[in-house]
Order: sequence, then C-alpha cells, then structure tokens
Amino acid sequence: MIKVSIAGGTGYTAGELLRILLNHPGVTLESVISSSSAGMPVAGIHRDLLGETDITFSDNTGHPDVIFLCLGHGLSRAFLNENDIPAACKVIDLGNDFRNDPVFGERNFVFGLCELNREQIRKANSVANPGCFSSSIMLALLPLAALNKLTDDIHVHAITGSTGAGKKPVSTTHFSYRDNNISVYKPFTHQHLPEIERTLKAAGNKVLPPIQWIPMRGDFTRGIFASVYTRWDNLMSETEVINYYKEYYKTSPFVFVSDEPISLKEVVNTNKCLLHIGFHNGYIHITSVLDNLLKGASGQAVQNMNLMFGLDETMGLRLKGSVF
Amino acid sequence: MIKVSIAGGTGYTAGELLRILLNHPGVTLESVISSSSAGMPVAGIHRDLLGETDITFSDNTGHPDVIFLCLGHGLSRAFLNENDIPAACKVIDLGNDFRNDPVFGERNFVFGLCELNREQIRKANSVANPGCFSSSIMLALLPLAALNKLTDDIHVHAITGSTGAGKKPVSTTHFSYRDNNISVYKPFTHQHLPEIERTLKAAGNKVLPPIQWIPMRGDFTRGIFASVYTRWDNLMSETEVINYYKEYYKTSPFVFVSDEPISLKEVVNTNKCLLHIGFHNGYIHITSVLDNLLKGASGQAVQNMNLMFGLDETMGLRLKGSVF
Amino acid sequence: MIKVSIAGGTGYTAGELLRILLNHPGVTLESVISSSSAGMPVAGIHRDLLGETDITFSDNTGHPDVIFLCLGHGLSRAFLNENDIPAACKVIDLGNDFRNDPVFGERNFVFGLCELNREQIRKANSVANPGCFSSSIMLALLPLAALNKLTDDIHVHAITGSTGAGKKPVSTTHFSYRDNNISVYKPFTHQHLPEIERTLKAAGNKVLPPIQWIPMRGDFTRGIFASVYTRWDNLMSETEVINYYKEYYKTSPFVFVSDEPISLKEVVNTNKCLLHIGFHNGYIHITSVLDNLLKGASGQAVQNMNLMFGLDETMGLRLKGSVF
Amino acid sequence: MIKVSIAGGTGYTAGELLRILLNHPGVTLESVISSSSAGMPVAGIHRDLLGETDITFSDNTGHPDVIFLCLGHGLSRAFLNENDIPAACKVIDLGNDFRNDPVFGERNFVFGLCELNREQIRKANSVANPGCFSSSIMLALLPLAALNKLTDDIHVHAITGSTGAGKKPVSTTHFSYRDNNISVYKPFTHQHLPEIERTLKAAGNKVLPPIQWIPMRGDFTRGIFASVYTRWDNLMSETEVINYYKEYYKTSPFVFVSDEPISLKEVVNTNKCLLHIGFHNGYIHITSVLDNLLKGASGQAVQNMNLMFGLDETMGLRLKGSVF
Repeated sequence: MIKVSIAGGTGYTAGELLRILLNHPGVTLESVISSSSAGMPVAGIHRDLLGETDITFSDNTGHPDVIFLCLGHGLSRAFLNENDIPAACKVIDLGNDFRNDPVFGERNFVFGLCELNREQIRKANSVANPGCFSSSIMLALLPLAALNKLTDDIHVHAITGSTGAGKKPVSTTHFSYRDNNISVYKPFTHQHLPEIERTLKAAGNKVLPPIQWIPMRGDFTRGIFASVYTRWDNLMSETEVINYYKEYYKTSPFVFVSDEPISLKEVVNTNKCLLHIGFHNGYIHITSVLDNLLKGASGQAVQNMNLMFGLDETMGLRLKGSVF
Repeated sequence: MIKVSIAGGTGYTAGELLRILLNHPGVTLESVISSSSAGMPVAGIHRDLLGETDITFSDNTGHPDVIFLCLGHGLSRAFLNENDIPAACKVIDLGNDFRNDPVFGERNFVFGLCELNREQIRKANSVANPGCFSSSIMLALLPLAALNKLTDDIHVHAITGSTGAGKKPVSTTHFSYRDNNISVYKPFTHQHLPEIERTLKAAGNKVLPPIQWIPMRGDFTRGIFASVYTRWDNLMSETEVINYYKEYYKTSPFVFVSDEPISLKEVVNTNKCLLHIGFHNGYIHITSVLDNLLKGASGQAVQNMNLMFGLDETMGLRLKGSVF
Repeated sequence: MIKVSIAGGTGYTAGELLRILLNHPGVTLESVISSSSAGMPVAGIHRDLLGETDITFSDNTGHPDVIFLCLGHGLSRAFLNENDIPAACKVIDLGNDFRNDPVFGERNFVFGLCELNREQIRKANSVANPGCFSSSIMLALLPLAALNKLTDDIHVHAITGSTGAGKKPVSTTHFSYRDNNISVYKPFTHQHLPEIERTLKAAGNKVLPPIQWIPMRGDFTRGIFASVYTRWDNLMSETEVINYYKEYYKTSPFVFVSDEPISLKEVVNTNKCLLHIGFHNGYIHITSVLDNLLKGASGQAVQNMNLMFGLDETMGLRLKGSVF
Repeated sequence: MIKVSIAGGTGYTAGELLRILLNHPGVTLESVISSSSAGMPVAGIHRDLLGETDITFSDNTGHPDVIFLCLGHGLSRAFLNENDIPAACKVIDLGNDFRNDPVFGERNFVFGLCELNREQIRKANSVANPGCFSSSIMLALLPLAALNKLTDDIHVHAITGSTGAGKKPVSTTHFSYRDNNISVYKPFTHQHLPEIERTLKAAGNKVLPPIQWIPMRGDFTRGIFASVYTRWDNLMSETEVINYYKEYYKTSPFVFVSDEPISLKEVVNTNKCLLHIGFHNGYIHITSVLDNLLKGASGQAVQNMNLMFGLDETMGLRLKGSVF
C-alpha cells in the first residue's frame, strides 16, 4: 500500500483527494496535515465524510511515499523549504508553483498532463499538476498542436464553477451575488496562459499563435465549459479530424470525443474530459468539459500518482457521475 | 417632497430602499450615509444603479424629514445616541432594536406591521419595522389571532433566501456551500419569536399557544416561504374562513389570498404577500410568501413612510415582479 | 389613454408586457387575446398578477390603438392575415416575422432598435421588435459600426437565460438538466445573425466582416451576457473610444457604459443595457448585459410604443431591478 | 457474476442503476430494456456514460438472475403480467406497485428497507424498494418506533429535488419556474404515507399517531431534506436517545447520526442517510438527509440486491459524494 500525506488538508482540493483516496484500493492515508486543525477529525471539516473515516488532522507529514501539496498558489515552495521531505518521497503539487518553474533543489517537476507526458510522469518523483482551466483548454487543443496545426489566433471562452475560487468566502462567491449571475474576469490575461502556451509548443506546435481567452464566472459549483475555435485550413476533412482526435486519445482512459454536442454535467463528479468538434465558417470549434476539482485538480493528481507508482492509471478514479 | 436620509447606506436593505425611493414620486434623497464610503458614488457600491443616480455617500445625516436606519441589528440605538436627530425628524428602524423594547428617550416606536397597526403608524413619528420572517408568519396568522382562534401549538417551517443573511460573505452564504443545498438553523429558537408572539396577542389572541418553528436556509436569493398549521375547531367552514381572510385583508393593498396553491416567485421583487389556505386532518394550513427584502424589510419600510406622511400607502411600491 | 391589445397573451413576453403595462400611466388594456384561455382570468395564468388585475383573456382583438404580437416566431404574419387589423391600429411584433422581411400589405415594419432608429420609430405605424440576443450584440457594436470601424472578424460568446426558450417545457429547459449546467447551441449559425448584420451595416459599417458567434445556454432564468471582441486599429485611444460610446448613447435613456466590469444581475428586471469596454492584445472587448424579456423583448416593445405615440421614451419603464 | 436486467431503461432511476452497476464488481449487465430505444446505445440517452459502456438498449429481458423494474408507478404489475419472468429470477421493483400490496402470483414482495428488514431481504426473491420521501422519513423515526415511542402527532416538512419528479418535462420542473422557487404539493396527503405508517407499526409502534406531512418542491436537483418532530416524554435523556440511535444504526453501513447540524449536500451522490437529533420545547426534532436517486431509489435497490445475493451490503456503493 502506498502511504499518502496531504498538505493543506482543509481546502477543497484536499477534500476531493480524501474522497477519492478513501475508496482507492492501493493507498493508505499517512497524514492529513493542517496545523490550524491538528487533532480535529477530518470529517469535522469535510462534513460529508462522516461515517467514512475517523482520521484526524495532523501537524506533521508523517513518513509518506507521496505527498500531495494542496496549499494554494505560491505556498508549495515555502512548504518544501520548511519541511524536510526525503528525496525518496514523491511530491505532487496541485498549486502553480512548479508548472512554469519546475526546479526545486534536486527535484525537477514534470508537468502532470497525463495525456501528453504519460511516460515522463511514470518515471517522475515530482509532478506539477496542471491548472483546471488549462487542463480543459489543453485537452481541447493537444491533438491539433501535435500536428502543428495551430496557425492563427485561438479564441477561447471558458466558464468556471465557484469551487475554482476556493473555500474562503469573498464577494464574488457570495450566493446572493453569484446565483443566476455571469461575469468576466482577467480577460486576455489569466495566469494559466503560460502553462497552456508552453504545453502546446511542447506538444509540437512550434510557433504558437496568440490565445485570446475570456475566463468567465458561472453560477454553478463544479466544472469548466471551454469553447475554443481557431481557423482551419480544411486540408483534413471533418471526419478525418474527428477520427484523428479519437485515435489521439485512444490510450487516454478519461478523454472522449462525443459525436453529439456536450453539456457540462455529463462530466461533473467524474475524472473525465469530454470533447465535441464542429466546423463552421473556416473555423474548427472544440467544446471541452471537465470537473475542475477532479480532472482539473485532485482527480488528475491521483491519476498522476497511479502512473508514478506503476498502478493502473484509472485506479480509484472510476467515479459515479452526479449528472443532475 | 419628503427629504429622506438612509443610515447604513451600503447594505442590502439600504440598496433596496434606494431602488424604491429613486422612483418614488414623493421623496428626494437628502443623504445616504456611510462613513466608510463617504464621497464615493452610491452606484459604485449598488452597481445596478448606474445611470439612475449620481448621488454620493455622505458622512452625515443632512436635514431629513425621515431617516431610515439600515444598520444591522443592535446598532440603531447606538446610532440615535451618537447622532442628534431632531424630534421632528421621523425614524424608521429596519433593525430589531425597538421591536420589543420600543422606548428611546421621547420616542416611542410603533411596531410597523401596517396590516395591524395602520392607524397608529399614521400618527407615529418612530416606527420599528418588523422582521422578514416574522412578517411572513404574522400575516399568515393575524386574522386567526384577531378571532382568538389560535388555541393549540402552531407549527411553522419557514425557508429564507440568502439575502436575509446580509452582505458580508460567510461560510453559509458561500455559493459552493449554498447552491443546491438546504439546512436548518436556530430550530425552535429564532429571535423573531418574541415579536411574533407579542403581535398575535396584540391582535386579539389573548393566550397564545407555543409556536414550534423551524427556520431553514434555502438555495435562492430572495423571498421567504412559510408553511404554518395549527389545529382547527371547524366551527367556521372552509369557505367562511377563506372569505374572512379576504375580508380581513380587503383594506390592505399588498396582502392577497390565493384560491390556488402559491409559489415563492409569485411575489419576488414585489411588496406583496400572498396567502393560501387549506384544511386537512383537523388542521388549518396556511402558506405565506413574501420578498424578504421588500415586504419583509425595505418595501414595508416605505409603506410605513407613506402612512406616516399621509401619502397613498402604495406610492412607489407598485413594482414589477421578476417572476422568473 | 392608449388602448392596447396583446395577441398571444399566455406566453412569457405577453406576461412581461402585462407586468409593465398595468403600471404604465399612459395605457389601458383593451384585450389580452388567447383563444384557448378566453374567459379565464389573466392572473390565473400569470399567477403573480393576483391582486393587480381582474382582466380576463379574450378571443378577439377589441378596438385597440396598438396591438402587440407575442405569438412565437413565424405566427405573426398568419395572425395579420386572419385578423382584420385596421390600418390606423399600430402593430408591434415581438416575433421575427418582419425583422428581415418588413413588408406586409400596406404596412412597412421599421426595425425597432430605438438606439438606432428612434426617429423612424416615432413615425412608424408598424415596428418589428429586435431579438433578445441581437439586441445585446447590436448595442455592443453599434457605435463602432457607426464609425465603420468593424474591419475584422467579430468574435461573440453570448449566454442566455432559460426564459429565452419560452414557456413550453422541453428537455433543455428541464430543471434537472439545466440547473448547474452549461451548453452551446447553434454555434456560428443562430437565426439572429441576419438582423444583426443588416443593422450594423445600416448603422454605417458598409462592408461587414463575419460574425463568429457561439450562443450558449446558461443555468439562470433571465438575462443575456454577451462578450464581444474584434481587432482594434488603435487610431483612437482607449479613453477616446469609451468617451465616444458614452456620447453615442447619451440620448438613449437605457444604455450605459460602465467604467467597471459588469455582471448580469446589474440589469435583471430592468430595461437597461450596460456595456463595459476593455482593450487587450490589439482587440477591443465589449461586454454587454440586458434582460432578455425586457430590453430584449417586452421592455423594448413598450419603449417603441412610447416613441410611436409621442410619450416620454421611459414611461412605465423605470423598473426596480431585482439585483439578487 | 450476477446477470442483471433493467426494465424501463431510459428513465432517471435506471440511469442511476447503470452508473452504479457499471462499476459494481459483482454484476454483468444482461439487458437494459427499452422497447422505444431498442438498438440504440445506452450512452446515447444517458449521455454521461460516454466512454464507460458500449451496451445498447434491448427489447427483451434476456436471462437475468435479477431484474430491476424502473417503470414508473403502477406499471410494474403490468410488466410482470406481460413478461414471463422465471420464478428463479429475483425482482426488485423501484415503483410503488408492491409496497402496500405485496402479492403477485407466487411472489411475495418484501419491503426493501434494509435497516428494518435486512434478514427477510437476504432470503427474498422479490423486493419492493421504498419510496424516496418515505425512506428519509422512516429512517428518521425507525428507532423511536422500535421503542413504541411515537405517541403524539408527527410533524414533517420534507423538501425534494427535481429529479424526484422524473424525466418528462412538465410545468413544475421547467427551469424558468423551478429555479429560485419553492412550493408545497399534496400537503397532508402524499401517497407515501401508507408505506411509512405500515413500516413504523411493523417496527414496533403498535398504535401510530397521525403523521402531518407537508411535502415541498425545492430548487435543487438531488436530495431530500426532511425535518421531523414529535412530542417527547423525556423519560430518556438527550444523550441516551442519541446513543440509542447510533447503536440502532450500528449495523447499517449507510446511516449515520451526526452530532452537528447537517445540510443536504453532505449526502448528495452517495448512498448515505445522515440524521441529526435535537430536543426543544418538549419535542424531539430529527433532520434527515439522503439522495433521492440513491439511498431513496437506485442505491437502496443495489443494496437490496447485494443482500439478496449474499454479497457485502456495501459492494459498489462506496460512492464519492459530490458535496458541492
């Protein structure tokens, strides 16, 4: 059994990790770390876990085989500085500290997009888990990037659920504001752009055109719906492109191409990403949906763990969708 | 024109007052008071008012004919102590400071339930506006209380929208928590019980049976749905009771008895209260809906103002419902 | 008083018209037509109107000064064929029958976008009310079109509330499907494109570039949030453009430019359209919000009526927003 | 492996069964029956199953070891009449046909409330799965009934999600109506009352007092929140009662007593039922939450199947909650 510790144990992504790992047949929980809540039952904070675990929060890492960092962006590096994590202990960072700046001492963080870097992840001892928005956009574009087919501005609107904003209540996550509301934030300037650009280049699109991206706040809790289009040269037919996408993701157990239009809830509470592809006016249009807390965060992190430890990539991740 | 000032100008009830008063033909805004936001445009906080007013927040009361206190419970008394409000200036308190403890110096606050105290309010210079929950429950029971017909335990479940919890973001108003969720709070012990009990007695029910009330948090923003029942002696027939309710509220321009079952959104964004009455198993069952920010707060406050200044009771309050 | 009839009286837009017109000081209701519900109280269908009107549905038009057609797309022409509407009776069509094909016998329908065609509307006896989506997009672009500044592909994502899909329950308006869900429909091919294109050309943009538009279904009831961008030559500075927009809409009482980012609920249950303008990466980005049932349908229809009868353009349309 | 067929394969409860059974290690799907959709992929209707199954709908039962009937209330009896189900094939009915009227030919349906009838279910070849509302209310009261402690009127308000109303779109499940709305239906007369009453008597409460129950429609998709109270004689202390409840459900792997107040989403997308117990004014107050489609329908049905086939009661039912 793999011994797992989780740093930043009270937040949303840690809660999702716990919900997955408690039913994962290959792991035991070594430590759920929260200095502020040390000694309290984990189910006292993640209230839905009542009856599923008696574990309490701890103030130290224990002796894990792998530690997940769920600390909030910018805090992982400090954690590694302050805690003496043995070199043999693998690290999976759910923050953005090592996505674009992968070196920390002897550790070199592999970017944990399984669909691109599966083989490197298998060998990695440190993984930087991709962002939720970036996962949805990268998975929409990865096959085109692999063909070097991204040649003109890439247009993206992507709308996220409120859990992406984390647990701390703020004005834009106030129910009275958010319910039945829609807004835009950080238009054209979202912090996930660098990791998307770097990844699409790494996938094979040597000269990447600009990504024009409008992130939006949706009035739902879970999920990201990304709508992406770029000019298409029509050198491949529609059928060829769709078949190519299906082939590209054939070895990826969680990414599927739908022949029918998709809606967000088809993936909520699963580790899946669904794609749908259409062609209009000389553009290729890809819609992409995933659950921001699962395939966009904790689910993908466990998928990375499975790869890093030589387990079946899907272990513990065949989740019943909530659908409704 | 009546000169109006509003203390506590940045909160939800102040915003609603502004939305009503800006279209009210009988008033001018003298001052919207917020020491923290003094000098800033009111439409900078209440963002929907863009294009409707250029007024800015002020740090003083000005010289109003009436001042609305929107300060949060427990702060009105302090405000009156700290500010020298002339005796000629009328006061309408939306907090709970004077509902059960009506005396402040020379001022004696009339309980501002128009449907019961219309005549006293007309003559009042100080009014304590009822609570939102209590308004919905009192209006359901007032006609029975007037007949001294409340003789056995009164059973209430009442579910409120998130705006009742105010503007400050907290864990129970976090969208990620509240969306699609239901919970109970303060069961059997809500702080509105004393004003309800006092009022039903004042209405004529000399010995009031206990009120067993479960308040609930709903996953909507506006409105209260109250479901109320108590044993019924059947000395009056169903038709007699329904006709009596209609007669009782005949002179009240905002309370109506529906022959059909009602739903919450039939009153949202209006100053109306709708009631529906049924009889089963020896009980009389009354459902009651109102908008907590309007008939349950700012709308009722303006209705009180209209009465206090001899205006038509409905002036400025014939609002288009949002319905959907 | 203007005598008003409404054809198709049981639908959503007719309901909204009624909610506005019952408080409009310049009109009386002549007839609310529904052959299927003739004789029934209007408040029996539009349940929120309980206590506000005793009018019943009628099976004939009566003798109105103006008739609003709320019949559903494609049915207005048939209605005019089947009913003998006198030439002196003005017609305002909320369907799409006459937007792109304006001639019906002697009648020549003016396109009812007040902000562009105010003077023609004043003289018109027949008006084709714009679509909801198109209103939000046209108002975002009208000032640029007037300068002939639309020179490159126009990129639009616009997300609509469920009331845009009408009253009949279908799978995509089922609460179990729609709640917390997002989907795309008719990408690049929405039927409002022709009226948008025709209007922007009429406004002054002689050669219009293609509009690449992804309509989306949102999980809210009211409103449209449109996010629109196109390349910008930077010949005018940001400040110049923003000031020009403000100047352009100075005479339009319901369109406002916000210096701050906007959210949908700032306009819900009002007749306003708010715009916000930003500049990034060589693009001008305009967000636009309006209530699809008001500024996008019934509110704009009343605004047109006001113009056609020489009333103040805002009469009956200063509505209290619901905000929350 | 147990061969499973599902009759009525296109509805909500069948979809949930599929989501559970596809990950259940002890079963194979024999047939998902839908005469209208025969030959079509199951994932064409239950769209979220894309990538998880290639099975198609069938027009016949195949040769299953157990058949789940998901046919809608009143249709199960007809199905058994029209189809020749061998005596050796077990039947689990999710409709209400056999809950109060358990005999069909040689079959005698055991009422499938695992917490009460676990041993009979283990031996049963036919089970009538309880209703969703009744499950939430029975689990709240079962321990008291076992002590014969229900002696005075039982007061219940229980609010359900929209999925309880099934897949067919109707006016009360229209998003434009349901969103942000609350309503009451069938007050005091819901059709689940007989099965609740019969069960509480069977549990040991020989003379059952009346249940006064107001069912409500909530604006969420999944779950039931039941708030239940009845007079309490105080012969047992609060601690004794709470400990007794915990002891009572000790052998039930999905029912838990929370020391803290509970909210609906703590159980959504799980097979759990959470209870919270309080004491006020001489009443015992129990809140109870479960997912209407899981512990209230398909989850409980699989739990019954597990018992009937001698499997671990929790097999396939340790589901990751959606929580948000």
